[in-house]
Amino acid sequence: MRIGILTGGGDCPGLNAVIRAVVRCGIGSGDEVVGFRDGWRGLLDDDAVPLDLAAVRGLLPRGGTVLGTSRTNPYAIDGGPARVMATLERHGIEALVPVGGEDTLGVAAKLTGEGVRVVGVPKTIDNDLDGTDYTFGFDTAVGVAMEAIDRLHTTGDSHHRTLVVEVMGRHAGWIALHAGMAGGATVVLVPERPFDVEAVVAHCLHRFESGYSPIVVVSEGARPADGDLVTATGERDAFGHVRLGGIGAALAALLEERTGREARAVVLGHIQRGGTPSAFDRVLATRFGLAAVGALHEGRSGVMVALRGTDVVPVPIAEATARLKLVPLERYAEAEVFFG
Amino acid sequence: MRIGILTGGGDCPGLNAVIRAVVRCGIGSGDEVVGFRDGWRGLLDDDAVPLDLAAVRGLLPRGGTVLGTSRTNPYAIDGGPARVMATLERHGIEALVPVGGEDTLGVAAKLTGEGVRVVGVPKTIDNDLDGTDYTFGFDTAVGVAMEAIDRLHTTGDSHHRTLVVEVMGRHAGWIALHAGMAGGATVVLVPERPFDVEAVVAHCLHRFESGYSPIVVVSEGARPADGDLVTATGERDAFGHVRLGGIGAALAALLEERTGREARAVVLGHIQRGGTPSAFDRVLATRFGLAAVGALHEGRSGVMVALRGTDVVPVPIAEATARLKLVPLERYAEAEVFFG
Amino acid sequence: MRIGILTGGGDCPGLNAVIRAVVRCGIGSGDEVVGFRDGWRGLLDDDAVPLDLAAVRGLLPRGGTVLGTSRTNPYAIDGGPARVMATLERHGIEALVPVGGEDTLGVAAKLTGEGVRVVGVPKTIDNDLDGTDYTFGFDTAVGVAMEAIDRLHTTGDSHHRTLVVEVMGRHAGWIALHAGMAGGATVVLVPERPFDVEAVVAHCLHRFESGYSPIVVVSEGARPADGDLVTATGERDAFGHVRLGGIGAALAALLEERTGREARAVVLGHIQRGGTPSAFDRVLATRFGLAAVGALHEGRSGVMVALRGTDVVPVPIAEATARLKLVPLERYAEAEVFFG
Amino acid sequence: MRIGILTGGGDCPGLNAVIRAVVRCGIGSGDEVVGFRDGWRGLLDDDAVPLDLAAVRGLLPRGGTVLGTSRTNPYAIDGGPARVMATLERHGIEALVPVGGEDTLGVAAKLTGEGVRVVGVPKTIDNDLDGTDYTFGFDTAVGVAMEAIDRLHTTGDSHHRTLVVEVMGRHAGWIALHAGMAGGATVVLVPERPFDVEAVVAHCLHRFESGYSPIVVVSEGARPADGDLVTATGERDAFGHVRLGGIGAALAALLEERTGREARAVVLGHIQRGGTPSAFDRVLATRFGLAAVGALHEGRSGVMVALRGTDVVPVPIAEATARLKLVPLERYAEAEVFFG
Repeated sequence: MRIGILTGGGDCPGLNAVIRAVVRCGIGSGDEVVGFRDGWRGLLDDDAVPLDLAAVRGLLPRGGTVLGTSRTNPYAIDGGPARVMATLERHGIEALVPVGGEDTLGVAAKLTGEGVRVVGVPKTIDNDLDGTDYTFGFDTAVGVAMEAIDRLHTTGDSHHRTLVVEVMGRHAGWIALHAGMAGGATVVLVPERPFDVEAVVAHCLHRFESGYSPIVVVSEGARPADGDLVTATGERDAFGHVRLGGIGAALAALLEERTGREARAVVLGHIQRGGTPSAFDRVLATRFGLAAVGALHEGRSGVMVALRGTDVVPVPIAEATARLKLVPLERYAEAEVFFG
Repeated sequence: MRIGILTGGGDCPGLNAVIRAVVRCGIGSGDEVVGFRDGWRGLLDDDAVPLDLAAVRGLLPRGGTVLGTSRTNPYAIDGGPARVMATLERHGIEALVPVGGEDTLGVAAKLTGEGVRVVGVPKTIDNDLDGTDYTFGFDTAVGVAMEAIDRLHTTGDSHHRTLVVEVMGRHAGWIALHAGMAGGATVVLVPERPFDVEAVVAHCLHRFESGYSPIVVVSEGARPADGDLVTATGERDAFGHVRLGGIGAALAALLEERTGREARAVVLGHIQRGGTPSAFDRVLATRFGLAAVGALHEGRSGVMVALRGTDVVPVPIAEATARLKLVPLERYAEAEVFFG
Repeated sequence: MRIGILTGGGDCPGLNAVIRAVVRCGIGSGDEVVGFRDGWRGLLDDDAVPLDLAAVRGLLPRGGTVLGTSRTNPYAIDGGPARVMATLERHGIEALVPVGGEDTLGVAAKLTGEGVRVVGVPKTIDNDLDGTDYTFGFDTAVGVAMEAIDRLHTTGDSHHRTLVVEVMGRHAGWIALHAGMAGGATVVLVPERPFDVEAVVAHCLHRFESGYSPIVVVSEGARPADGDLVTATGERDAFGHVRLGGIGAALAALLEERTGREARAVVLGHIQRGGTPSAFDRVLATRFGLAAVGALHEGRSGVMVALRGTDVVPVPIAEATARLKLVPLERYAEAEVFFG
Repeated sequence: MRIGILTGGGDCPGLNAVIRAVVRCGIGSGDEVVGFRDGWRGLLDDDAVPLDLAAVRGLLPRGGTVLGTSRTNPYAIDGGPARVMATLERHGIEALVPVGGEDTLGVAAKLTGEGVRVVGVPKTIDNDLDGTDYTFGFDTAVGVAMEAIDRLHTTGDSHHRTLVVEVMGRHAGWIALHAGMAGGATVVLVPERPFDVEAVVAHCLHRFESGYSPIVVVSEGARPADGDLVTATGERDAFGHVRLGGIGAALAALLEERTGREARAVVLGHIQRGGTPSAFDRVLATRFGLAAVGALHEGRSGVMVALRGTDVVPVPIAEATARLKLVPLERYAEAEVFFG
């Protein structure tokens, strides 16, 4: 079988581990594997690279993706799907393993409708894809955020300051929830639960009273219940390009005013997306790659691999990407036990 | 409610996080919490310490257990159970949260029979307890082993040497399996699958031929299919006390002879058990602690908390500890894809 | 001898290690040690705490300072010096070990003039204090920044983006220089060398042409040769309190415009100041503490301890703090070898 | 100029950083660089590889050496020097940069006598080469050992056990000294100071009495003052090949007997030699590489580069390798302040 593989969307630790697993497993089973560069763009532009064993040596611990990535969507481009089909035909690709999030897998689902055999691998650092317990990259991002929080604790306490840590999560607060629980945050704010500024202030003051300094972990997509703090404060940057600061900076400014104690924001940004994957993510990404090839060998299509408990199983792409996986109330309630 | 808590068996990153969660959640719900020192010994000898919020401050990132631990079994001691019951009565303990492995939870199950309300928290760094997808501490141990393997890769390649890494796992090979997959091992040997020395030698030679050096990850309990390598080679230490070397050293010696290339063994030992827990383990341990208190509040007894998928649920202790959770064939087959 | 100790200025990994060393060494030699809270404020307000062996147990690996810190300057307060002298007398303090930067040591130097026996310990995370080869905390900060850069490399390459990393360093570029050299930066910009925007753009474009993505490491105090980029772009935050973004955000915006490729900024901020010290910093901080007590025992005063090669020696405070230690041309030239 | 480079002796984090710096700096100055594989063996067997910019991309953070290493000594082989000279001539090598320890640099010094222009780069993970304040790799090894000790502290305390950590250092105790100081060891034992078993036992007992567990850090080359513990106990392995255990295992066994408390040994072995270098080592290795090329351009020969304070300077090879740099009494006395 000739298998094509591509990686789309934002960077995520574990992408290279998936590529390596698909190649090692495919070649071990007598398949050939072709990589397409920069997500769907590689299929539009016929930018391909043959992947043999030598090409994937040493990839396991490396962050990023040797195939590059993009947010190109062939269905948003005139004649895009036809160009993709032509490329597939030109390379004799019999099956495709797209690795990506909602957008990448959405394209994959549509291609299935056109007769392409597809087994997707889910990827979202935010862990907000329904249908799988976890996606790779998430554990690494949480670990990076937790280590930052660990470091900030002592500095906050020494300086008697509030420290606000802004982590990734536009729509779902999983990184904030896990990093906040793991780091011992005073408050965790997530997009799913518009927050009450008064309550946040009260938790911070309570923390100061007990002789320690508050650490507030906030998802980039979290917002106050009454109005948008970021819009309200006119937050924007010099050129309108770089979105630094956001809710983290606005919240730090607000908490400084309201608590009467200095506050500082730390925005982790891309550090959460890069670098060597954690052991959990390397194992998960590797198993996803193996399972994708296995599913192709079993003649599956239109599915993506998913973690359910300790098993990796195929699930329909459409079903899995139908809605975002949000932080449920009861999980947030667990974090609330430690507020203040 | 007055809740007693104790930690038994071997050290494990996350024990302090469980203690903290039980205390924070208990006190937040109006309970009182009493700690007993050194596992069941603290209940035999009435060695207790009240646990308030101040007592658990800063515990989350710390390895070890502030309560200490031991392997004392009250049922192995004349009058032991009666002494335990007397201590519980003296302190007005209405419910007990023992944190430990098979042995500790076995005692807990028996105490339930004597009318003590018990909700256990499973703990085994080897991840070999049935009834829960994962136990805390395992992810940290795998991470420590993976980082060691990452470091050894470059040294092996520079020196053209075989490196054997012995990891924990007397009966179950989970740490070897995950660390080996995450670290890109040439071969992974686990107790569940007696290994063929010829096959291991062949994988190592194949690896040398491709221009790189083999890394063999071996569980301390792994053995060759034909006879016990460790016994056969007369491996033992000076005083018969310290069991260093074991299968790792024996295997390195054997591979050196059979491949004609130098081989060295690294025995990670206690480093895998100590130190700050990973984010995964801090979250899991915290959730276990919360769920234990929750189960007590719901009137449960004779259960332990367990991870199933992303949920923490109560399961009968007896059922969960009835048999070891071993590495199944299909999981080992995943690792084999990367051998050689 | 009764020794007083205090920590002033910004947080810095290794402060606790100094405190521990002074206490262990002092008590081992028959001295008594008293800590004053929050830098010179503790001496103004008589906020003291006796430091025995138990008080410093476990401090070595912990970031921050158990004594707290502040930027209070007794000489900026009416009657301040007299209040300090009164506190010293009240506690029978015969010698003082202030741990801090230029400001803290400046106060120390003045107190010497009033007859107080003082041996200072230099502290600046920026490594910009003259008279000592290195100060503790610097190596940890460089390590944190380097790990972030390591993580960003793969993400930049996968996304074909410029990443700008803003590190600490208002007047001296040591952190940028070392982290940039250690992280393999495409360009390093320091306060000592106003930069040419055209040259930075050219280096970034050259890097893109070779198939990789540029990483620009910039000190917070670095500025372009022609005008202040930060002021020019009107960079400021919502409330005027939180100084996030700064040169990093402005430079990313500029590079995005000029290279035609997306650019993102990462501002490491307080993460560089907190958390457990590196081995280098723990050893240096410990040796500084020992040497301070040693110098007091030898009857020295008006000096601070300093690293010269591998030796820790006393040097006059005044001399050591007379001017900032800036990155010299030849050190910057070393970094330039790797630009582009 | 055509520059040859080779790496000899044991693996050491930073070797690749030296190679990269020599190539980047050399090519930037118009030189050509040729690498020889596996130390002096590559010159004996004419095993060469041209090193251009692409060959050294991504090398900075990687442990090991892309050139491989060996302990081959051409002067120990009949006709060896002549074969080396012939290879140099065949490749038109005008200058040689050997990177290695005493042995490798010893060969270099002899070659200088035969008219070869040589600027050496010192390398010893043990930091025992005279003439330079530090060698790269040492800081990384100390960091690895310190992290292990950090992890062991909590496990020792939880289990009430003595933990013995054996680190590298056959003749010099620098790794033990620094890792022990940084990790807060109860006792540090080095080859330079034959130890008194009674004193070690006393320190351990004292530590247990204060409620904590002892951690003993011991260099592989440390020995008791009265007789050799290792020989005395008949320490050896199954085949006589693998030297695991050694002083660490023997000492743990002895301390278990003498203190009446369980003791365990951890032998860090090759983990200390491999993996990504610390920031300190990456900067030092890079500067060594730059300085070596710089010295060649200045017409120097028979020298090696060395760190003196914050400067990298050339020093005569012969002088620098004349004797081992041992831990002096006063440095050991610093560590002793914290014993017990």
